[in-house]
Amino acid sequence: MSSTYETFIEMVRQIGRLESVESLLDWDQETKMPPNGLNARAEQLSTLARLVHEHRTSPELGEALQDLNGQSDDPVRATNIRETRRLYDRAVKVPADLVAKIASVSAHAKSAWAVARKDSNFAAFAPHLDELLKLKCEVADLVGHNGDRYDALLSEFEPGAKAEEIANVFAELRGPLSEFVSQIAAASTRPDPAIITRHFPWAAQEQFARTLATAIGFDFQSGRLDASVHPFCSGTTPNDVRLTTRYIENFFNCAIFGTLHEAGHGVYEQGFDEKHMFTPMGSAISLGIHESQSRMWENLVGRSRGFWKHFYPLCQTQFPDSLSDVSMDAFYGAINAVQPSFIRVEADEVTYNLHIILRFELEREMIAGRLAVNDVPEAWNTKTKELLGLTPSNDAEGCLQDIHWSMGTFGYFPTYALGNLYAAQFFATARNAIPDLDDRIARGDFKTLLDWLRENIYRHGQRYTATELVEVVTGSPLSVTPFIQYVRAKFSPVYGLE
Amino acid sequence: MSSTYETFIEMVRQIGRLESVESLLDWDQETKMPPNGLNARAEQLSTLARLVHEHRTSPELGEALQDLNGQSDDPVRATNIRETRRLYDRAVKVPADLVAKIASVSAHAKSAWAVARKDSNFAAFAPHLDELLKLKCEVADLVGHNGDRYDALLSEFEPGAKAEEIANVFAELRGPLSEFVSQIAAASTRPDPAIITRHFPWAAQEQFARTLATAIGFDFQSGRLDASVHPFCSGTTPNDVRLTTRYIENFFNCAIFGTLHEAGHGVYEQGFDEKHMFTPMGSAISLGIHESQSRMWENLVGRSRGFWKHFYPLCQTQFPDSLSDVSMDAFYGAINAVQPSFIRVEADEVTYNLHIILRFELEREMIAGRLAVNDVPEAWNTKTKELLGLTPSNDAEGCLQDIHWSMGTFGYFPTYALGNLYAAQFFATARNAIPDLDDRIARGDFKTLLDWLRENIYRHGQRYTATELVEVVTGSPLSVTPFIQYVRAKFSPVYGLE
Repeated sequence: MSSTYETFIEMVRQIGRLESVESLLDWDQETKMPPNGLNARAEQLSTLARLVHEHRTSPELGEALQDLNGQSDDPVRATNIRETRRLYDRAVKVPADLVAKIASVSAHAKSAWAVARKDSNFAAFAPHLDELLKLKCEVADLVGHNGDRYDALLSEFEPGAKAEEIANVFAELRGPLSEFVSQIAAASTRPDPAIITRHFPWAAQEQFARTLATAIGFDFQSGRLDASVHPFCSGTTPNDVRLTTRYIENFFNCAIFGTLHEAGHGVYEQGFDEKHMFTPMGSAISLGIHESQSRMWENLVGRSRGFWKHFYPLCQTQFPDSLSDVSMDAFYGAINAVQPSFIRVEADEVTYNLHIILRFELEREMIAGRLAVNDVPEAWNTKTKELLGLTPSNDAEGCLQDIHWSMGTFGYFPTYALGNLYAAQFFATARNAIPDLDDRIARGDFKTLLDWLRENIYRHGQRYTATELVEVVTGSPLSVTPFIQYVRAKFSPVYGLE
Repeated sequence: MSSTYETFIEMVRQIGRLESVESLLDWDQETKMPPNGLNARAEQLSTLARLVHEHRTSPELGEALQDLNGQSDDPVRATNIRETRRLYDRAVKVPADLVAKIASVSAHAKSAWAVARKDSNFAAFAPHLDELLKLKCEVADLVGHNGDRYDALLSEFEPGAKAEEIANVFAELRGPLSEFVSQIAAASTRPDPAIITRHFPWAAQEQFARTLATAIGFDFQSGRLDASVHPFCSGTTPNDVRLTTRYIENFFNCAIFGTLHEAGHGVYEQGFDEKHMFTPMGSAISLGIHESQSRMWENLVGRSRGFWKHFYPLCQTQFPDSLSDVSMDAFYGAINAVQPSFIRVEADEVTYNLHIILRFELEREMIAGRLAVNDVPEAWNTKTKELLGLTPSNDAEGCLQDIHWSMGTFGYFPTYALGNLYAAQFFATARNAIPDLDDRIARGDFKTLLDWLRENIYRHGQRYTATELVEVVTGSPLSVTPFIQYVRAKFSPVYGLE
């Protein structure tokens, strides 16, 4: 007897519920768990990972997918069947033991990486990186690809994307970006970024960060904001979205723009229809699209002149000791200073993508087997010189700076740059659709933009792939032009260029 | 081929891990979850409940138990096999759908109860209570019993206990307790309890509560303290134990003794051997034994003269506005005032057990089918008059005061009184084993007692049943005498009796 859609979708929801529990456990680990709880947490997470894998590859689900083949007149059902099929096809190729092994190896690698970074000792991390790289290459070959192994890993984060296409996009981006960075470096007008390293008390930062998150539409009845070492957004369901941020008292940007960034992820998660909870129709398309929302709210909105026209007076009353003598122009310049630097997470909007290009090119070589793990530090430093004009003085500010490889997430980095490009392209379309958008932002009206994003992006869940969505929303395929135009238009006046 | 113990214990651990995840989700719901997260949380919890039931009743586990039958020379293995067998035998008799139905009905009953209590409207809660009572009677009959259906429910919380035995214990307790309450009521010397309703700022309460919990041995590297409406201790693993308490600024006792109570549960949970994590050897015996630890630390230690001899000077500096003019004697009297009252959770040490006797007698009648749900309010009021000499003015301070029945936990209440009796009996034994125990407590040395409890109770996990443990530790079966002696010896001087 044929499976019904109802039986099928209940299996899908069951998987979604277990994944949401995993995500809650991750959140708890980073925010609330007492230090000694780690061993038990690792066991709980590995148990859940195995259960999820079992459910994702269960014969019942396979049969249901078989039975439902073609039953896809309704776009909601078609989406849920298509995406479940995609994950099923991928998961059945990977044995449960390999999944469990990677979870265990990466748990150890993560802690080895933390120590290695602290000591700037790449040699201590290299064997872990080597083992993880081999295991992930094994996964890639099991999952299958058309010659480019990187594609199989990339598709875990950006379904349907191809390394070759991304390489082409990055090639288009690199020239204009490097040229603009050089122009900025040579500019005689320069904002003074020192203002943002004055004293900003924790409590006032937290209060202000909550005010901004609420203003852009993050609903604290359906979410929280906590502190953690690595800021993140954990979206378990549209009605329970958890943001974290990090407070540094002598650095304004970290908590404030960090919260806007995570709240951008958060309003996307809160924008899914509750009736699709725990199914693909109620889930994010890709990490690139997710990042487009965090970067849009953090940068295109949150670092815009209009945004601060509205919020700067409040900001001054919130931090009177540090900002009462600072003009709006000086403040706007300071939060938008462009400066090539070693650390990706602290990079400005203009140089950020260069950090991603660097990582993408290196991991592609590693995964293709053309760059040995032991040669990574040298390759990293060479590329940093080439792209940013700098030479890291040690591996901690070089190839050991990011946590990602220690988690076995190869193919993740490009989604950050894609996010920046999608964000600029979506925002340009929103500006056309809402001609007075900038004025609205300057008046503190963020709801018009949020409603537009909900209508055009959020409510669709995984109905479209990222590639399709960009076409549906903007009428054009992904292009670097809106991003280049955006950074040129925004930063030229800051640096007195044309 | 025969199952090995290793295969078996891994299945057991798997269940333990899932149960610990359930418990974390419960903790999160009460402490951190945003209000709108409730629907998703109910789904997550019901998914986990079903998975746990599936694992508890899996044919593989049944076969392993069959194969291991008799392989029990080692006490650790014997314990793990015996307790897993007990839960397996119970679980296989209850269909998964009934488990899921009770979870769902009680979720609704809990919220109906909260409204009914607020409005003091028993009629609004009665249909829910009736349905839950019927479902739990169905469970009891499926699980099986020797004529007394109450036993089948009681054994969920106090394995091996019999209603008839508890009735006999309570019969012995009732006379001496009522007599002592009358003597106290007639006493001319009386402490003034008004002191403890002065102003005690939240932040100072929290700081002081943490100091006390740390002092008695609760390890904050392996645990937390948060605020919640209903205080509880959620012990997921020995290295991750979460306490909650409730702060009332014009009531000293609530957070302070509440924290000591939960920390008493907490040191028990932290006292299990980590190598037995997620197995019966690393779990609490029964709710009665659990409660013996919370009540011992809250009352026999925490409300003792010695304890406050040590802590009162610090307490005065913590709450200077309210306590600097209060003598140690006056304070000690105030926190130990005896006064029959309507509300169980606010009851003093002497009258507390009378509240439990009332509930036990009523639920026994309900479960035997001799008391209809609609007749509960009248029966409650009659018994309150009989046991405490008071008549509730409404059902909110009568039969609607406790959450338990709305959760379907019938047979739970007696474990509170058993806890008081076990506590007094264990403490009398500890006093014999550590002759200067009172002096040690008065010097702030709680470690000697804690070490004794760890050695004699905590590290054994479920090796003994509660009945066996009492005999092993104290050399005698459960008796009401130590408790009666304890309250007479403690409260007679407070009320100037003999």
